[in-house]
Amino acid sequence: MNNNLKTKIKNLKLMVTDFDGVWTDGKVYFSQTGEETVLCSRKDTLRIKEIKALGVDIVVISKEGNPVVMARCEKMKVECFQGVDDKLPLLKQLLEKKGVRPEETAFVGDDINDVKCLKFVGLPITVADAHNDCKKVALYTTTRKGGDHAMREIFDLILWSQTAVFFVGLPAGSAAINYNGATGHKRRSV
Amino acid sequence: MNNNLKTKIKNLKLMVTDFDGVWTDGKVYFSQTGEETVLCSRKDTLRIKEIKALGVDIVVISKEGNPVVMARCEKMKVECFQGVDDKLPLLKQLLEKKGVRPEETAFVGDDINDVKCLKFVGLPITVADAHNDCKKVALYTTTRKGGDHAMREIFDLILWSQTAVFFVGLPAGSAAINYNGATGHKRRSV
Amino acid sequence: MNNNLKTKIKNLKLMVTDFDGVWTDGKVYFSQTGEETVLCSRKDTLRIKEIKALGVDIVVISKEGNPVVMARCEKMKVECFQGVDDKLPLLKQLLEKKGVRPEETAFVGDDINDVKCLKFVGLPITVADAHNDCKKVALYTTTRKGGDHAMREIFDLILWSQTAVFFVGLPAGSAAINYNGATGHKRRSV
Amino acid sequence: MNNNLKTKIKNLKLMVTDFDGVWTDGKVYFSQTGEETVLCSRKDTLRIKEIKALGVDIVVISKEGNPVVMARCEKMKVECFQGVDDKLPLLKQLLEKKGVRPEETAFVGDDINDVKCLKFVGLPITVADAHNDCKKVALYTTTRKGGDHAMREIFDLILWSQTAVFFVGLPAGSAAINYNGATGHKRRSV
Repeated sequence: MNNNLKTKIKNLKLMVTDFDGVWTDGKVYFSQTGEETVLCSRKDTLRIKEIKALGVDIVVISKEGNPVVMARCEKMKVECFQGVDDKLPLLKQLLEKKGVRPEETAFVGDDINDVKCLKFVGLPITVADAHNDCKKVALYTTTRKGGDHAMREIFDLILWSQTAVFFVGLPAGSAAINYNGATGHKRRSV
Repeated sequence: MNNNLKTKIKNLKLMVTDFDGVWTDGKVYFSQTGEETVLCSRKDTLRIKEIKALGVDIVVISKEGNPVVMARCEKMKVECFQGVDDKLPLLKQLLEKKGVRPEETAFVGDDINDVKCLKFVGLPITVADAHNDCKKVALYTTTRKGGDHAMREIFDLILWSQTAVFFVGLPAGSAAINYNGATGHKRRSV
Repeated sequence: MNNNLKTKIKNLKLMVTDFDGVWTDGKVYFSQTGEETVLCSRKDTLRIKEIKALGVDIVVISKEGNPVVMARCEKMKVECFQGVDDKLPLLKQLLEKKGVRPEETAFVGDDINDVKCLKFVGLPITVADAHNDCKKVALYTTTRKGGDHAMREIFDLILWSQTAVFFVGLPAGSAAINYNGATGHKRRSV
Repeated sequence: MNNNLKTKIKNLKLMVTDFDGVWTDGKVYFSQTGEETVLCSRKDTLRIKEIKALGVDIVVISKEGNPVVMARCEKMKVECFQGVDDKLPLLKQLLEKKGVRPEETAFVGDDINDVKCLKFVGLPITVADAHNDCKKVALYTTTRKGGDHAMREIFDLILWSQTAVFFVGLPAGSAAINYNGATGHKRRSV
């Protein structure tokens, strides 16, 4: 992990994410009555409380209009905006409202309609199976595919970076594997 | 991409597709009450509006009788015929009604009951996990399996071919990866 | 394909199968209300009508008690017995009732409670991810895993064997790939 | 299989397990109405009755609060505690209540909140895709991922170890493959 990425993670105050393709694999289970179901990771959600306790807020912005996005975010206790065709103006409003600078913000997205937001924030993150345009602008690409515990990998990376007493180099792509899992994290001084 | 394929894509006015195995992986989630659910890709549907804006119509013809096919096509805003045992006569009627020639038509299918339609159109397309009989007659076989964002690969290929200012050679199988994702596409002159 | 297998397939009059792990991947989608859903292949069912038209009957015998087995078999129009703890006695009754000899019967199973039936019939078949005890006694092991179009592979093999005008050697494991998909099959003389 | 593992399995009286990530793949199917569904293995459950008949009790302890955990355990006829934030105190109570020593207990877990329980018992077991912290303390790591018949691999290993007349060395990772599937097991003398 290079120093630029380290610094960005340590300064992080807000994480804004796409939903489909990031918390899911970009697929939808569609029933004969039109009901939609998505596949999510319980390992992703195991870390949300700890991330928030570190002072990093999490917000979802999704283009999809189906209520499954909102329902899932409610279960995860994560703020959610859905049915958003152009995400960047909303992202800017969010930062202004929360008093957070782009340099203190991460955006996690996987498709072409996320590229503008990825370019805007200080810490652009994408997933292993993202569109190439996302990978070109991302500072960190998870080793996991969207929905396959990719968010957990990011959360582990943040927890590891912000709480480890001795900050040693993390082998590329091994965040999820090597995080030591200590509890009662305290934010390390930046 | 060879010149024949380039020309076919540039002249494209109508895309007719099978449903199961193309928009899905050819599988069905079957509940104890007999309700059917299929697995679809949100990445596939992200491009439908743009493809239609280019003047390429999309129609689904499916052998399956379950209402899940129609329900999904309604969500995608795509015209749909289902419960069709013999697809070719209907395909011919469609072309006549829409005033489109076979040379201006693509058909996307994955199984033996799609072969006659694939042979009839100018641009026969199949998916990575299709029956070999489909692959033998297809001009383009997606690098993705059916349901695994295969339609998105085709849509990206069409958008790339019809909108790029400089038409450079596309490495085989990399359409989905290299498409530049520009917005506000205008159909390039053929 | 060796001569023994060829002969067994040509003489086939009855195919008895397990359900879970053969028509499915041996998994179950279990909801918070206890509703069960299984994942099946639409490619499997595309051939059932043709197999029956050749005079080969299909019957399912399952240990599982949940109504999803019966519901699926009704959709496939296949006779079904479920909640069967010991399958062999029922298999014997079936053969007697239908006047079919073990040498004219195939059994398709994937787990240890199928072994006795596999040993009893003339044409024992198992799937790629079956328990090793099944593979030890099977004359044919599909190249596909259960639920991943394994039954289609078997049906293609039967159709190919019983209808091809010139019976040429079939490369091992390639039945599903090479079957020529001709329609209007007539049973070839044995 | 080393002698320590052999002895632990032969002395086993109680198996306590996590649910998500062990009996499932750690994912959840989340519908637009908030209903949760998990993917389980029918091959896992095929052995539960036999394991209990050997005198090995099975209990599930889960952090997850959704009723799907309880519903599944009821179907499997396995005792279940859910919504448990700290598992170790409950595990200790269980052992006291049942009069079983840690050396006679196995714990199967896959994530960081299982580590304390894994360290407490005599036979800590984890799955192929578990968090590294679990693997570090486990005596046995299944060759299968959670939900992909991993529990069946453990059950086969126990049955094989406790019932085989001649106890020969088992090749690493091949328990699920080589178990001979004999019925009417009797517990072998330790």
